[in-house]
Amino acid sequence: MTGRDGGADLQPLGNTPVVILVRPQLAENIGTTARAMANGGLFHLRLVAPRDGWPQDRAWRTASGADRILEAATAYETVDDAVADLHHVFATCPRPRHIVKPVLTARGGAVELRAATARGLKVGLMFGPERAGLDNEDMARADALIRYPLNPSFMSLNLAQAVMIMAYEWWLTEDATPSRELMTNETHVATKGELENFMRHLIRELDSCGFLRNEQKRPGMVRNLRHFFTRGEVTEQELRTLHGVITELSHPRRG
Amino acid sequence: MTGRDGGADLQPLGNTPVVILVRPQLAENIGTTARAMANGGLFHLRLVAPRDGWPQDRAWRTASGADRILEAATAYETVDDAVADLHHVFATCPRPRHIVKPVLTARGGAVELRAATARGLKVGLMFGPERAGLDNEDMARADALIRYPLNPSFMSLNLAQAVMIMAYEWWLTEDATPSRELMTNETHVATKGELENFMRHLIRELDSCGFLRNEQKRPGMVRNLRHFFTRGEVTEQELRTLHGVITELSHPRRG
Repeated sequence: MTGRDGGADLQPLGNTPVVILVRPQLAENIGTTARAMANGGLFHLRLVAPRDGWPQDRAWRTASGADRILEAATAYETVDDAVADLHHVFATCPRPRHIVKPVLTARGGAVELRAATARGLKVGLMFGPERAGLDNEDMARADALIRYPLNPSFMSLNLAQAVMIMAYEWWLTEDATPSRELMTNETHVATKGELENFMRHLIRELDSCGFLRNEQKRPGMVRNLRHFFTRGEVTEQELRTLHGVITELSHPRRG
Repeated sequence: MTGRDGGADLQPLGNTPVVILVRPQLAENIGTTARAMANGGLFHLRLVAPRDGWPQDRAWRTASGADRILEAATAYETVDDAVADLHHVFATCPRPRHIVKPVLTARGGAVELRAATARGLKVGLMFGPERAGLDNEDMARADALIRYPLNPSFMSLNLAQAVMIMAYEWWLTEDATPSRELMTNETHVATKGELENFMRHLIRELDSCGFLRNEQKRPGMVRNLRHFFTRGEVTEQELRTLHGVITELSHPRRG
């Protein structure tokens, strides 16, 4: 995707926040912003007084196929124009100073944006220019500021990275992926009975070869093996492989 | 920060995960990775077979001052070499296929990494090359895969963006910022007594100018104003300004 060739088949996913880039300097950053928006399911992009005008081919070159977002983007002369039809506007701001304003975390902001859109409100997220960030007049037009909890000794955040974090948090507000799950592919997690069947096979062969000959130590050794094989989930396919391993090791094929 | 001039005063913040870039192609992405690591309080960077060798000046040019991370980075020929001294290794992987492996969300992965480092274990986070991602041999060396919950219809994630999300989630595991708070600057949130004092001032002047002359509607009108002024927190400074507004409107200075 290096030109205006249409890109990915992106479209608005319901009522999603408008991303407003205020006085963006580099068209490349507008492109990478569109890419980050697509990652998080955002679509509506507004540009306030982009330094080099709009549209700019360089934006398409860095958007990795998020062309539809760039094609639908609209440019405005002022922040007031860009937010006139919105109900809530949040402004990202790494170092708010001398300002009396609610400050949200990225996560808190995403949750509030989701709640507002669920009420049918149109919401916007403002991001400032690359170096200076939003000025005091811009921030006075925001309902709240969003400040990311990040390393205070290194606050230099790339514009598209800032957009990425909000897009990611926006996506997460409706994501229900479990924090850990075993991807089992075309097999299934083994039942306790299947595991026990394998343990019996293993112990039988270990008895047979003499590994468990010390009757006093035998119960503890078996228990330790059982602990090992129950530490994580095991799949049916893995048990079949392990059965094979035991069989082959205990009854080696003669050349 | 455009050259090797030292950059920000970064150092390891305790036992933090090692970021392992496997066969990275573009030195620029190594630099932006270092920047994202710094944002999230990560420091240790390892490179497995970087395509153009290491070090590369172009990495320093995109690191925005995260130079210390690049200076401390180490290069390896194989993944096995790069992870040999680590206890847990997680691999980021957008589309794991035909693999039997635990899959974590970014958030779940960060929480597990934090728990492991708290036990004194050394942990690593593997990221694959820009286009192809990690291959099956790489992934077989990971304890678990991390898959970001993101828009499935646009999975093209920039390398530094992928690192940014994990660095951000890592930072959040020990962050206690409230999701919303009023930034009050050099003033304080007003007490209910101070607010009531203002309400009395306002009502007195509204009575005086005749705005509340309808005795039947008066209680409801006063209640509506009270609702408005208690909708959000108000600061002492804002109340002083509002007192001034009421005073000036009701007793305009002549000429």
